[in-house]
Amino acid sequence: MSGGTPLPGGVLRDVERSALARAVVLAARGLGGTSPNPVVGCVVLDADGAVAGEGWHARAGGPHAEVVALAVAGERARGGTAVVTLEPCDHTGRTGPCSGALLAAGVARVVLAVADPDPRAAGGAATLAAAGVDVVTASVEDAREALRVNASWLLAQRLGRPHVTWKYAATLDGRSAAADGSSRWITSPQARADAHLLRARSDAVVVGVGTVLADDPSLTVRDLPATGDDVADAELAWRAPLRVVLDADGRTPPDAAVRRGGGPGAGETLVLTAAEVGRGPGGVDLPAVLAVLHARGVRSVMLEGGPRLAGAFVDAGLVDRVRAYVAPALLGQGSAALVSAVTGTSMDAVVRLEVDDVARVGPDLRVDLVPGHE
Amino acid sequence: MSGGTPLPGGVLRDVERSALARAVVLAARGLGGTSPNPVVGCVVLDADGAVAGEGWHARAGGPHAEVVALAVAGERARGGTAVVTLEPCDHTGRTGPCSGALLAAGVARVVLAVADPDPRAAGGAATLAAAGVDVVTASVEDAREALRVNASWLLAQRLGRPHVTWKYAATLDGRSAAADGSSRWITSPQARADAHLLRARSDAVVVGVGTVLADDPSLTVRDLPATGDDVADAELAWRAPLRVVLDADGRTPPDAAVRRGGGPGAGETLVLTAAEVGRGPGGVDLPAVLAVLHARGVRSVMLEGGPRLAGAFVDAGLVDRVRAYVAPALLGQGSAALVSAVTGTSMDAVVRLEVDDVARVGPDLRVDLVPGHE
Repeated sequence: MSGGTPLPGGVLRDVERSALARAVVLAARGLGGTSPNPVVGCVVLDADGAVAGEGWHARAGGPHAEVVALAVAGERARGGTAVVTLEPCDHTGRTGPCSGALLAAGVARVVLAVADPDPRAAGGAATLAAAGVDVVTASVEDAREALRVNASWLLAQRLGRPHVTWKYAATLDGRSAAADGSSRWITSPQARADAHLLRARSDAVVVGVGTVLADDPSLTVRDLPATGDDVADAELAWRAPLRVVLDADGRTPPDAAVRRGGGPGAGETLVLTAAEVGRGPGGVDLPAVLAVLHARGVRSVMLEGGPRLAGAFVDAGLVDRVRAYVAPALLGQGSAALVSAVTGTSMDAVVRLEVDDVARVGPDLRVDLVPGHE
Repeated sequence: MSGGTPLPGGVLRDVERSALARAVVLAARGLGGTSPNPVVGCVVLDADGAVAGEGWHARAGGPHAEVVALAVAGERARGGTAVVTLEPCDHTGRTGPCSGALLAAGVARVVLAVADPDPRAAGGAATLAAAGVDVVTASVEDAREALRVNASWLLAQRLGRPHVTWKYAATLDGRSAAADGSSRWITSPQARADAHLLRARSDAVVVGVGTVLADDPSLTVRDLPATGDDVADAELAWRAPLRVVLDADGRTPPDAAVRRGGGPGAGETLVLTAAEVGRGPGGVDLPAVLAVLHARGVRSVMLEGGPRLAGAFVDAGLVDRVRAYVAPALLGQGSAALVSAVTGTSMDAVVRLEVDDVARVGPDLRVDLVPGHE
């Protein structure tokens, strides 16, 4: 939230805490669809605390979550409470300011989970408070999931570059392919579907030309999980992610699968050469790559490259999250290491991470990690 | 259970289900102390279903769980129920038969989780039923934890060799040491304490002479978790595990740490050479090693060797459980693979496992795996 006086972190009522949890679920439906905007979910409660309307932001240029929820709630919003995952905007962009819409609807109270760090959009809380609305900002504990659902966008706002998730699949002993190159069956269909959901929620998928030449991947979204995830339903807002090949010397074949179309799951293709972004360790200049993508509205990148590209991103400090799919198997004399460009040969060069989440996906493990604090 | 007519699997009352869960916790206190006997826990309920006595088997030759629990319950056992993790024994060994003790105490009902596969001890259920006691065997679902707590002993009964758990610590990318050999800080103090608990609960710890020459480990039990595990209390029954070095050519130095004493955590030392057990792939004959250990009363082995020894056990199909401590770190250009002797260079040679349990231990992950079913 902007302005001089920070609004106090308030205590949420139970019904508001439930509404916020629901608003986060609604917000998550927009993942992969709203960039360069954040995802936002909103639940409007009437004066008695009953749910009167729900809304979420589905795509940049489309209506904001608050406006959708207020439209559903109608007159029931008057004297009620709007619970929203992100501070309501205060500026007129492609849509009008949400602060004004909330005032016009006559809500008496606004509960927001996360203040908006965007100076153009911020100020909504202050505007509402100045107009007499009871504005409450959730505690860090209450805001945890709302922070998580917008983690990519918040980091991109802070650093001015997209959030990067390195995704890989490997065996327990860190092998992603056997010595003869066979690698098809490392993880299960369930894990692969889960990874496609991550693709769908990303703005861009990035590989190196080595992967294109070795595997000829299409990098399309397909085989999403059929059930079990609340966002994998008809209301999914994702757009097919931009397909990006880092290709210093322009070796991507004209007929590479990554250049082909193929339905709603196939995004645009961008081949970045050294002529466009300059050279860096192991290929192209990675900060320049991320700057190009950010300028195109990309806020979340899924890195699916091989060990050399992954190592280059790790070495450059440009991996914000690791999504590991670990198959409960041992390959032993498999091929190269999972990540091969990490500098140094001693434990001093270890890259320390922190486990953020562990889940079982079919027979496999899914481990999410973030950079450590040492 | 022995005999012709299998007793029907019965439905447990809620109070009996709770008593069985408690009996499993009691049984677990004996892990590492009772071999060649199983671990057993017993809870005696009075006629009203209230807990009247608890007992567990702490060491071979010591009183059985039922006898301890009945002694605590006294006259309250009459007309009550004995809930026990393993079928009460029916034979007179170093102690009298538990079936007789239960009859003498006048219990009206016996709930047992797992039938005894040992022909010398089995028959207790039939004896009790013949005497008019209501004997109920738990369903597989209800017996799950009771099976788990005796998994080593049950496998040893079935196969005539000790259960083998291969324990290792590695980074996310499957490295157990950096290229220069430095490996001290792979996992956290919490994970190392957890591993010491596994040592304490094992009858023998096995390494290869290569590990002795490289690391000079003492293989003693120390630094057990201070809190958090119900068995890590004053009632722990573990004995220091036998320290076993597989050393085909007798290269273990006379002053190796593994030969030294050092308090209650230092077990006996057994160096097995090819002269004693014959040669096998990569060193000594592993089935012969396990036969020697089984003859000494060892029912559970913790394998702590390096990649060559682990690979030899894996190749021989002699790993029954993998206990992996995974540090959330990347080593990249580390030293050799985690397991180096797995045959083959293609995905066809993959060793498939199944995840049995995942837990977070401090900053690390603990993953327990068992051989797969394909």
